[in-house]
Amino acid sequence: MEHKIAILGASGYTGAELVRLIATHPKMRIVALSGDRKAGMAMAEVFPFLRHLDLPQLQKIEDIDFSRVDLAFCALPHATSQEVIARLPRDLKVVDLSADFRLRDPADYETWYGKPHAAPDLQAEAVYGLTEFYRAEIRSARLVAGTGCNAAAGQYAIRPLIEAGVIDLDDILIDLKAGVSGAGRSLKENLLHAELSEGTHPYSAGGKHRHLGEFDQEFSRAAGRPVRVQFTPHLTPMNRGILANVYVKGDPRAVHKALFDRYLTETFLEVLPFGALPSTRDIRGSNFVHVGVIGDRIPGRAMVVVALDNLCKGSSGQAMQNANLMLGLDEATGLMLAPLFP
Amino acid sequence: MEHKIAILGASGYTGAELVRLIATHPKMRIVALSGDRKAGMAMAEVFPFLRHLDLPQLQKIEDIDFSRVDLAFCALPHATSQEVIARLPRDLKVVDLSADFRLRDPADYETWYGKPHAAPDLQAEAVYGLTEFYRAEIRSARLVAGTGCNAAAGQYAIRPLIEAGVIDLDDILIDLKAGVSGAGRSLKENLLHAELSEGTHPYSAGGKHRHLGEFDQEFSRAAGRPVRVQFTPHLTPMNRGILANVYVKGDPRAVHKALFDRYLTETFLEVLPFGALPSTRDIRGSNFVHVGVIGDRIPGRAMVVVALDNLCKGSSGQAMQNANLMLGLDEATGLMLAPLFP
Amino acid sequence: MEHKIAILGASGYTGAELVRLIATHPKMRIVALSGDRKAGMAMAEVFPFLRHLDLPQLQKIEDIDFSRVDLAFCALPHATSQEVIARLPRDLKVVDLSADFRLRDPADYETWYGKPHAAPDLQAEAVYGLTEFYRAEIRSARLVAGTGCNAAAGQYAIRPLIEAGVIDLDDILIDLKAGVSGAGRSLKENLLHAELSEGTHPYSAGGKHRHLGEFDQEFSRAAGRPVRVQFTPHLTPMNRGILANVYVKGDPRAVHKALFDRYLTETFLEVLPFGALPSTRDIRGSNFVHVGVIGDRIPGRAMVVVALDNLCKGSSGQAMQNANLMLGLDEATGLMLAPLFP
Amino acid sequence: MEHKIAILGASGYTGAELVRLIATHPKMRIVALSGDRKAGMAMAEVFPFLRHLDLPQLQKIEDIDFSRVDLAFCALPHATSQEVIARLPRDLKVVDLSADFRLRDPADYETWYGKPHAAPDLQAEAVYGLTEFYRAEIRSARLVAGTGCNAAAGQYAIRPLIEAGVIDLDDILIDLKAGVSGAGRSLKENLLHAELSEGTHPYSAGGKHRHLGEFDQEFSRAAGRPVRVQFTPHLTPMNRGILANVYVKGDPRAVHKALFDRYLTETFLEVLPFGALPSTRDIRGSNFVHVGVIGDRIPGRAMVVVALDNLCKGSSGQAMQNANLMLGLDEATGLMLAPLFP
Repeated sequence: MEHKIAILGASGYTGAELVRLIATHPKMRIVALSGDRKAGMAMAEVFPFLRHLDLPQLQKIEDIDFSRVDLAFCALPHATSQEVIARLPRDLKVVDLSADFRLRDPADYETWYGKPHAAPDLQAEAVYGLTEFYRAEIRSARLVAGTGCNAAAGQYAIRPLIEAGVIDLDDILIDLKAGVSGAGRSLKENLLHAELSEGTHPYSAGGKHRHLGEFDQEFSRAAGRPVRVQFTPHLTPMNRGILANVYVKGDPRAVHKALFDRYLTETFLEVLPFGALPSTRDIRGSNFVHVGVIGDRIPGRAMVVVALDNLCKGSSGQAMQNANLMLGLDEATGLMLAPLFP
Repeated sequence: MEHKIAILGASGYTGAELVRLIATHPKMRIVALSGDRKAGMAMAEVFPFLRHLDLPQLQKIEDIDFSRVDLAFCALPHATSQEVIARLPRDLKVVDLSADFRLRDPADYETWYGKPHAAPDLQAEAVYGLTEFYRAEIRSARLVAGTGCNAAAGQYAIRPLIEAGVIDLDDILIDLKAGVSGAGRSLKENLLHAELSEGTHPYSAGGKHRHLGEFDQEFSRAAGRPVRVQFTPHLTPMNRGILANVYVKGDPRAVHKALFDRYLTETFLEVLPFGALPSTRDIRGSNFVHVGVIGDRIPGRAMVVVALDNLCKGSSGQAMQNANLMLGLDEATGLMLAPLFP
Repeated sequence: MEHKIAILGASGYTGAELVRLIATHPKMRIVALSGDRKAGMAMAEVFPFLRHLDLPQLQKIEDIDFSRVDLAFCALPHATSQEVIARLPRDLKVVDLSADFRLRDPADYETWYGKPHAAPDLQAEAVYGLTEFYRAEIRSARLVAGTGCNAAAGQYAIRPLIEAGVIDLDDILIDLKAGVSGAGRSLKENLLHAELSEGTHPYSAGGKHRHLGEFDQEFSRAAGRPVRVQFTPHLTPMNRGILANVYVKGDPRAVHKALFDRYLTETFLEVLPFGALPSTRDIRGSNFVHVGVIGDRIPGRAMVVVALDNLCKGSSGQAMQNANLMLGLDEATGLMLAPLFP
Repeated sequence: MEHKIAILGASGYTGAELVRLIATHPKMRIVALSGDRKAGMAMAEVFPFLRHLDLPQLQKIEDIDFSRVDLAFCALPHATSQEVIARLPRDLKVVDLSADFRLRDPADYETWYGKPHAAPDLQAEAVYGLTEFYRAEIRSARLVAGTGCNAAAGQYAIRPLIEAGVIDLDDILIDLKAGVSGAGRSLKENLLHAELSEGTHPYSAGGKHRHLGEFDQEFSRAAGRPVRVQFTPHLTPMNRGILANVYVKGDPRAVHKALFDRYLTETFLEVLPFGALPSTRDIRGSNFVHVGVIGDRIPGRAMVVVALDNLCKGSSGQAMQNANLMLGLDEATGLMLAPLFP
């Protein structure tokens, strides 16, 4: 049996990535695609790389008949998402890829996103979508809130260390290198090829990046006390990929063991041998996460390095993994695609 | 039932691409991988992007037990391939990705590759592997010779035009832009990132590129008379992809119709509407070929543009498509992966 | 003595390139910079790479006191340029980098740019700025019209061949690969890093690119009869550089000799030994042009390959070379910067 | 008067960068170029981007007549350099770009480079080449040892903070992103375009990178007590540029003030306004260094970010600056080239 899928916001990168994944998913069929400004267009016009697929035309959200939809992916911009989801049928399964339902406390939402939450009642039922840590809740959820791509990378490194009690909670530093597709298909000068290629620079530095809201929420919950981390993301001249370096104080071998033990049975998390470090080129286009740990010549200091694909495991692949669970499927269904190299 | 597969030369890019494709192929299982200089190593060491797969160690070819192999892909360097295949069991199905068995006449081989062919008897049974044009022969072949990646791109544009008789056979010009993975994992100064990125240049220009041997053979056969084309390949700062511009003299609409009609029923060939032209970014990582045709302000001139992924449809994807046929499978099995964009 | 320079349109790439060149020019000093939408900003805000220079603030054109300006570079968008220049003092020396004054016949302008010329009287005094071919006229000109960057590349290959009478005028084909900075700092989806890197595609194909207007005008004048060429430009994932392959019918050695002889005394044109071909990476950031010629296995066919930097020799470097002449300086002043490699 | 210059090791990237800089240097003339394996070749063959220059042929070092040389740049590989310099005339001014004379204590050399120093007597007279901190010694030196490119970037951030006493000396962390040209023209798989582009990864992590020897030596000397830092370099898909993020504990405003005050009179160091951070694309191809400082939401934590061009200010530009001083010239002579953007 095939599940009938709608993708709202199919004209952006995460929407297109969902279509790419569903193209070879044995149990899902796309029945509706929305793209407000591009309603009436064929997906092949908006994304010629999907030309070989037989897909419904883009339409306006209000023109979709949700009675024949089993699950909707919502890949809309932040702030738009909460308004759209509030108008969807209340029994429709929804996986939201925006930031709108990630922060449990609406006050946190207002702090980080600068305006009141428009659907606090929906927030109450939303489950945070970091699959490996909320699997049970996701399985029975109606509304799952996808994590930030950077937020996913940081948490894969740090959560098991907090749980295992092997690091100093007051001195955690994340220096992260992100590919440009994480910024979406937005028309900004600093995303032009001529400006971005052949250079690298930090952005939203100094404790201002919004994914800190997720880090604060999740790390504090895991630790049972407030935890604040330092976090500097950089724009790097590659299209896909996040490399998160997490610098911690703790015994490097204990750090490695905590991660190795925690992820031993996880399909998508590969913990490398102690001392080996990952590269983004080895996970590109896939749902896999590579995790490495190394010590330092200074005793008691360790670095964890996490590599994942921001569009796949950091966003649409994670969403698919969660949707699989919500539909009663094996969570890896359609997600075993090997990375693309070179 | 799963077919048992060996990949000889698994430590190069085309070998790794075969592993990538088999990773989600429902009917093939890898039972042996060779890599002479890297024998004894795990694939995860040679290609960390394959870390999530449970694969046999690399071994020497002479240590492989071919009695338990149904089909061998041979992804070895040119010249080595003919020697290795000559020593394999004579009833083993083989798909060769090298240049060794592409030219039917051993004299042509000597002309283009500069030394006598070492296995002319095997050459006699080899079938040229351009699937869409040799499907019947491939289905019953024991030994299939994969085409050159540039040779595939050029033929997809030109063969139907010769067959339809819509162009001047004496004035065909191919200006081709190739991604760097086509040069393989070889250590050459001009393949270093610092030398290659941010620049483009022609190579093997002036009628010297070896794929001209394939063009001559195939176009002359199709035309029933000698056909010689001009061909200039360029190295372009992208990893995957070939864009072949073919300039011909003939009516542009007739050219478009010949291609459209010829590929109407082909799974992997997408002919765009007249006037639309393809981009390599829309086929990256896939087995699909995009074909576009446009006219010129000068009447009677047309340009055909073909985009394909050199490592996939131009090499390992084509090999897989042929292997599927040789094993009695649907030729598209395991090859419907959508391109990776962005 | 220093000449006082104004740059109108200093917030785009060609304007910034002029500032870069003047930074080490011994005889020019910038006294005014305009940038209408960015008036009031410091150049260091708009272009941080110019931070070390002591430059005037951006201002509106109407606020510039042209009485203290010796020469103005006009790096404004097409169509705007003619309106602005029409309002400047009639005795001010002007080098225009736009397309507005390139076509001598206002009817040609209307054909290629889709609307009537707004300053046909100024057109009458404009000199076409391909320095090596209009040096005498430029020296005494008041208004020089910079060539298109692609138009420059094509002409460096073809003009000497027309003059020498060594090629078939009815069968000239230009396949050109252009870096992305040629498209300027415009916000378009297809110029985003995520869309452009790792791919290549043709644009304005089929006889529609506006630089054909320049080719038609110049080649027909040189030949004394109408000449029409085929021309396909491609967007290539590099920031700077044009590689123009020109396919002609004629004796390859005669083609090489015509170019070698013509450019023997030119400072910026380097004709390579017969059979050697250039690469864009070897001229990046400089005013130099590399020209190569090769034959083909088919007798009577030759390929000329020209490499130049679109922002420098194709635009701002050419403009500087012309300005030097108009100010009575050696034309190479400030332009001997070596290319940047790697 | 022109100074006569020899470049030993002119066939590598730093050697070629020296030639690029001397091309427009008003007071230097190249009289000899060595390149052992390429002796007898023209520089235009080895580096076609230098084709326009009239340069001596590459020759073997033993064939150079050093009596007519005023200063030699030594751009040879580590370990080779000390042997070559030991054989040069003892009164010849030498700027060495290798690692051979950077560490004052030969025991430190052995620790970091794994073998005894071959010329400890020469080491005694070598001056460490970080111009802004050793200007007086360099002016009168005979032998100057260029710094590591990463070592330069880290020191520009940290030295003034140690001198000003505004940071915790026991908790300094450098996360550095380096362009690929820093690895030189060496033939390694991980430097191939297909492997490097579209990815990023750490290397020599965990306290193993050799530039730590320089950090230890210089920071401990400046502090008057042992200082050990953490340091993780990354290979980033760009050709030129280093972005060094230095995480320190101290008051951010005091950190900014210490850097601003220290570099106020330096020609090549640009300290940005507090809160602004640099990008490598803004210093590419130049001798300029951009320095930014930002605080964090966690009080008492600051990040300094330094951007410089590894081949220029990090290596050959620094060498030129030092050579200018040694020859009694203004140190900025020939080094005011503006960065290349885009």
